[in-house]
Amino acid sequence: MRFRALPGFRDFYPEQMAVRRTIEAVWHQASRRAGFQEFDGPVLESLELFTSKSGPEIETQLYAFSDKGERRVALRPEMTPTLARMVGARAGGLPKPIKWYCVPQFFRYERPQRGRGREFLQWNVDVIGASEPAADAEVMAVAIDALRMLGLGEQDVVMRVNDRRFLRRMLQSIDVEEREEPEVLGIIDKLARDPAAAKRLEERLGEKRAREILGWCERMPLGRAEELESVLEACRDYGVEAYLEPDFKTVRGLAYYTGPVWEIFDRGTQLRAIAGGGRYDELIAAFGGPDLPALGFGMGDVVLRELLQEKGLEPEAPPRVEVFVVPIGPEMLGPARQVLARLRERGVSADAPYGGTKVGKALKAADLIGARRAVLVGPEEWAEGAVRVKDLASGQEQSVRLEDLE
Amino acid sequence: MRFRALPGFRDFYPEQMAVRRTIEAVWHQASRRAGFQEFDGPVLESLELFTSKSGPEIETQLYAFSDKGERRVALRPEMTPTLARMVGARAGGLPKPIKWYCVPQFFRYERPQRGRGREFLQWNVDVIGASEPAADAEVMAVAIDALRMLGLGEQDVVMRVNDRRFLRRMLQSIDVEEREEPEVLGIIDKLARDPAAAKRLEERLGEKRAREILGWCERMPLGRAEELESVLEACRDYGVEAYLEPDFKTVRGLAYYTGPVWEIFDRGTQLRAIAGGGRYDELIAAFGGPDLPALGFGMGDVVLRELLQEKGLEPEAPPRVEVFVVPIGPEMLGPARQVLARLRERGVSADAPYGGTKVGKALKAADLIGARRAVLVGPEEWAEGAVRVKDLASGQEQSVRLEDLE
Repeated sequence: MRFRALPGFRDFYPEQMAVRRTIEAVWHQASRRAGFQEFDGPVLESLELFTSKSGPEIETQLYAFSDKGERRVALRPEMTPTLARMVGARAGGLPKPIKWYCVPQFFRYERPQRGRGREFLQWNVDVIGASEPAADAEVMAVAIDALRMLGLGEQDVVMRVNDRRFLRRMLQSIDVEEREEPEVLGIIDKLARDPAAAKRLEERLGEKRAREILGWCERMPLGRAEELESVLEACRDYGVEAYLEPDFKTVRGLAYYTGPVWEIFDRGTQLRAIAGGGRYDELIAAFGGPDLPALGFGMGDVVLRELLQEKGLEPEAPPRVEVFVVPIGPEMLGPARQVLARLRERGVSADAPYGGTKVGKALKAADLIGARRAVLVGPEEWAEGAVRVKDLASGQEQSVRLEDLE
Repeated sequence: MRFRALPGFRDFYPEQMAVRRTIEAVWHQASRRAGFQEFDGPVLESLELFTSKSGPEIETQLYAFSDKGERRVALRPEMTPTLARMVGARAGGLPKPIKWYCVPQFFRYERPQRGRGREFLQWNVDVIGASEPAADAEVMAVAIDALRMLGLGEQDVVMRVNDRRFLRRMLQSIDVEEREEPEVLGIIDKLARDPAAAKRLEERLGEKRAREILGWCERMPLGRAEELESVLEACRDYGVEAYLEPDFKTVRGLAYYTGPVWEIFDRGTQLRAIAGGGRYDELIAAFGGPDLPALGFGMGDVVLRELLQEKGLEPEAPPRVEVFVVPIGPEMLGPARQVLARLRERGVSADAPYGGTKVGKALKAADLIGARRAVLVGPEEWAEGAVRVKDLASGQEQSVRLEDLE
């Protein structure tokens, strides 16, 4: 009988794990150097935490079940409810602005398809308690900083930026009523991807108003978007303006955004979103947290990794060890282990055969692993407190005293 | 309405997360420098993977449920079944020995109590495809290496070592029958903790045989334990012998061990196990994997953290940022962000106020955060391409050209 991973779930063999850890390391680095602190919450939360704001229909996409204590629980599909809960529990004691990030795994019961499994990692960066546009710009810069570290330049990815207040104001200027807004925003959101969306807009608002909107989508009326001006200015200070593209079509599907919104796309296909974020000033309170302005973004690992692969930028796994220690003869197995212990203690990754002591075979193993050096432990040199160090690239060898080995 | 974390689940606020990450970093470091590669599997697996070997009774301790596709699934309570599954799927293609480690989160539906929640992190280190005693010694040394890095010395912790083959051979030598073994091993396992265990042993085996066993427990008959000799010798080569204590009472509760077994205890209370491991040569095949010898250990985060706290060794959270940038006046907010961008790009963690520009308040914030330096961005110096750098410990200030700032 052969078991398999559940559909939509991933096994991370060492070579995949190395790539995952490299991407995560970049996420950590970009967050930390911008002064964000890491937090984490439980993988499992009470179901109500997720349905209280989004409504019970979200349950159909969740891994939800009853635990043995008859609690309705769910595997987390997103972080904001947990963030709101945790900030809420300590709101008074936390100095503002709260700058937190996390690198959690999320779970959604969806039909597995390319770029969308039932489990994924997502980098989340949030600022709570800041209403300044500079905060919006900062998280945008942090997202771009990570992509830049991974080798993705402005020729590879684009950040489309808009503002919900601006969007709504423009719609009001052509007499779109408030109750019509969600539907109209939904259609605008689809304009870039769905050829039928323009037609639906016309059906909904008439030819004249539809054409007006399509004009704004063609060319963002930046002169009227004063809400975005200071965000864009701060982005220039942060040096990320080359990645930015103000874009009227960027709405973000989620209803809860209240200010700047943005999405990062692969310039190649213009279809795959790599990250998305925005300001959601009412959301923390809606999830039962304190009434504090907030903003943030999420960046998943799946599309990002696909893109890095396509661009030949996928990080390479480092060699398993740096040094391979080779005992010359069976009586040198013990000394070889002493050499191992010394190297490891000094922070050098090192390995040696457990038993077999064929030198040629050991050197071949060292090569296969990608080790840069072999340390040969032979009886004569050992008696004098030394070993031979062989550079596996150049083939050069030299005798090194044990206390100098590192 | 106020939500809470589920009972037995932990919220990791930044200060707790920093400790968790420091412990994890030590686990990673000890693994990698000994040539182990990280892997990971799904948090959710099919229930059958866990019950196939352990039997259906394990289900009572699991977070098990039916997903929307009517699959019986469970949150992972341990890693070995996943490890066996993953190795099984690629056994032919993986060079032996397979040296893998992981730092997963596990889930068990148990009554939450001190040192035992419903979720915990556990470092797992395994070697598959090595029958040499040196492999046993190596993973023992890796476990100790991590504790040593965390500041725990041989005066703090002890590794009790035994061997299942030796145990069984000794029991056979006093005519304990094979069918009695599990029960007798179970009683021996309890001797160190349960005062009633000695009496039960006597009831079970009679006074004479019980006294014999109690004698071995008092003083390990090492001269008869040839199975352990080469493990202990390799441990001496690895320089960890001071942590070791051969101990007849160490059995390990789990039935599947086939060779050396060991547990690390806090020397203070002698009650709390920090880690445990051993050889389980038949287990990978029993979980449907290939028939390969194997061994490994697990070290959880909960008891370890408690112990570090008690010893005053809990790692401190690093300061949120190294540098706080202070704009002198509102027109310097933009230049301050340019300074931020430059510092961050050079890998220096740095922060600045989003809006407020009261210098005294900003310096106080810098101090509160634990920043080591403040960078003051004033109009005159900025016009000349420079900023003032203030060492927050000494109070010393100096002018630094922007291109030299790092």
